[in-house]
Amino acid sequence: MAEQLKGACIIGQSGGPTSVINASAYGVIKTALENPNITKVYGAAHGIRGVLDDVLYDMGQEDPAELELLLHTPSSALGSCRYKLKDSEVDDTDYKRILEIFKKYDVRYFFYNGGNDSMDTCNKISKYMQKAGYECRIMGVPKTIDNDLWGTDHCPGFASAAKFIATSCMEIYHDARVYDTGMICIIECMGRHAGWLTAAASIATHFGQGPDLVYLPERDFDMDKFLADVKRVYDANKKCIIAVSEGIHDKDGKFIVEYGAADAAVDSFGHKQLGGLAATLANIIKGKFDAKVRAIELSLMQRCAAHCASETDVQESFRSGKAAVECAVSGITDKMVGFARSKDENGNYVCEIKLMDLSDVANTEKKVPDEMINADGNGITDAFIDYALPLIQGVPQMKYENGMPRFAHLKKVVAK
Amino acid sequence: MAEQLKGACIIGQSGGPTSVINASAYGVIKTALENPNITKVYGAAHGIRGVLDDVLYDMGQEDPAELELLLHTPSSALGSCRYKLKDSEVDDTDYKRILEIFKKYDVRYFFYNGGNDSMDTCNKISKYMQKAGYECRIMGVPKTIDNDLWGTDHCPGFASAAKFIATSCMEIYHDARVYDTGMICIIECMGRHAGWLTAAASIATHFGQGPDLVYLPERDFDMDKFLADVKRVYDANKKCIIAVSEGIHDKDGKFIVEYGAADAAVDSFGHKQLGGLAATLANIIKGKFDAKVRAIELSLMQRCAAHCASETDVQESFRSGKAAVECAVSGITDKMVGFARSKDENGNYVCEIKLMDLSDVANTEKKVPDEMINADGNGITDAFIDYALPLIQGVPQMKYENGMPRFAHLKKVVAK
Repeated sequence: MAEQLKGACIIGQSGGPTSVINASAYGVIKTALENPNITKVYGAAHGIRGVLDDVLYDMGQEDPAELELLLHTPSSALGSCRYKLKDSEVDDTDYKRILEIFKKYDVRYFFYNGGNDSMDTCNKISKYMQKAGYECRIMGVPKTIDNDLWGTDHCPGFASAAKFIATSCMEIYHDARVYDTGMICIIECMGRHAGWLTAAASIATHFGQGPDLVYLPERDFDMDKFLADVKRVYDANKKCIIAVSEGIHDKDGKFIVEYGAADAAVDSFGHKQLGGLAATLANIIKGKFDAKVRAIELSLMQRCAAHCASETDVQESFRSGKAAVECAVSGITDKMVGFARSKDENGNYVCEIKLMDLSDVANTEKKVPDEMINADGNGITDAFIDYALPLIQGVPQMKYENGMPRFAHLKKVVAK
Repeated sequence: MAEQLKGACIIGQSGGPTSVINASAYGVIKTALENPNITKVYGAAHGIRGVLDDVLYDMGQEDPAELELLLHTPSSALGSCRYKLKDSEVDDTDYKRILEIFKKYDVRYFFYNGGNDSMDTCNKISKYMQKAGYECRIMGVPKTIDNDLWGTDHCPGFASAAKFIATSCMEIYHDARVYDTGMICIIECMGRHAGWLTAAASIATHFGQGPDLVYLPERDFDMDKFLADVKRVYDANKKCIIAVSEGIHDKDGKFIVEYGAADAAVDSFGHKQLGGLAATLANIIKGKFDAKVRAIELSLMQRCAAHCASETDVQESFRSGKAAVECAVSGITDKMVGFARSKDENGNYVCEIKLMDLSDVANTEKKVPDEMINADGNGITDAFIDYALPLIQGVPQMKYENGMPRFAHLKKVVAK
């Protein structure tokens, strides 16, 4: 048993939001508020920026009933950021400031809720605090719709996005074949380097009501082969539904979206801001087929459609936040909470908590493995379906008021 | 009491589908199958085209449990069309063929499930059959997400689309303000001439979590005023969410989408095929503000997201189909089923069936009235909220299987 450590905790959220990142945060906040070793629970406004700017919310002043609504409230309730910490060997200004704030509020627990880049931030802070000899237990709480965090079976947030994508694709399937005229429909899903989300479109196909063709960034995209694929499907029944990942690229690494669009902008992490791929492909297809061609971008909805979340994802996200606090209080630090998959005696899916070193997780990407992609590179295999189906179970147990979702309203009282 | 009329019935679906048009069809099919005066229930494949092509499904051969799933199955399960009948005075070829098919199958009841154009079709057939002296009771069963049918308080299909739009806008609101950086988000809703759907985005605003600015096609759109509106909102809090109707146009009638796009294509009814408006406006805004600008098109999802339907809409749609059959059997013909709104003794919303002459409904459009649009023309008034809220109540009581919606699978046995 590690020595008891008393002090305040900070929870921060970072990176692109998901439908369930607040469920993870609620897992941290509720568990921390109930733990006698944690003297105060602060929420950092806009992730690490809130620490640097000394804008911390006193979560103890929130109404518990509102906090509970975080389970089904999309986006990052505390605010997010895409701020990248410099290497502390190069410039330790930010780190000194973070240490100053930690000391000011007697912060002994730090929970950071995000994806790869956030785990990098979390890892850097952890290593700096160790070097500085400041005792603080630091835990990463994962989230990413992209499902690309290394070492965990799956990531909180993925399943809800997957469920929205699969459900929307199934609904679009019905809509897109309503007329007796030709129709080609291209559905664009998020995913720069990993095709997990686009693969989720195939869940609808598994039920006989989904895309005919699915292209992931794990395979080089060949325009001629694509057009031949579309022709083969379209010639057979005058309908073709295609799901594409925003990050598909040709064998030279050129993004397909760039075939038709101006060079994409670049965000503060150096990632290209992609988008408009479906429209680009639609323009290429138009004229080649006697069909109406429709481009659909699932856009922000795939990461914020809490009304279509997976309740399994909601509950697992909560558990990941809860586990982070319990582990930290028990003496663990410098880890990210992850999931391991196992089965119960009846062969049913069971999700267990596992821990990974932050330094292993930071900036490592997990792509869709070969065995989940078909030989033609235009669809997925049953291995993916077997993997994904247990994750999307359960209708979200949301609160509705007057026909609309009732999301959490936080007071956000700034700590003095 | 009108004379009893025995014979078969045909139900056809036409025009753009909705999340609940199948609930209306199910109301017709179930009620007709149970009625002793109706000898056979046929579903026309792709609306009036199925009649012309002699492709009728024998609905009596369907599994009743599958038929019941139609309540929550999006799109037009029988298939739809956008076929416009010529004036019978000019060319009666189609009418003669329809009469031939009616006689072949002893069709004495015809139910047509669609929007303005479909009511025009329904009206033309009704008038032709009267002139031809062929006894057949003909009823229109309304549907349109556009809510633009004349004479009815609201249209089946509108509320579910409105609920999806309002819910998505509320979720996007949370997502779009997650970062501490500037963000302008433009959300495009369907609606060529009537702004009902775009107005629905304001339901989210009513709950404090929706678009700041809403532009309907009922008002001429002025680009300079728009940019000034955006600047005012954006300067105040570095966020601005805008909902626009695809059909907004300037004072000269030029569609705003044409400001940035090539001339839009025209469909078989002579309607311009609009789309890409959000992207057009985003391109105009970009560079004028220090903000990330995101264009979101709700696209097909707004008319097929059955998972986010209004259960009130589902049940009312079913009732409209049921009422059409009951009225026809009782001797009524040449009418469209509509809704009248009243209140019970406690002041609660009550929806009652009313009937309208088909000739009054056909091709008449009902726009959003002045009192529902604010003076600035960039938002809606409480009159709209009062109108819309009762319609979007209720979470759809869908069946799920393995985490996904379980939609109806029809056998579609073609009648001999």
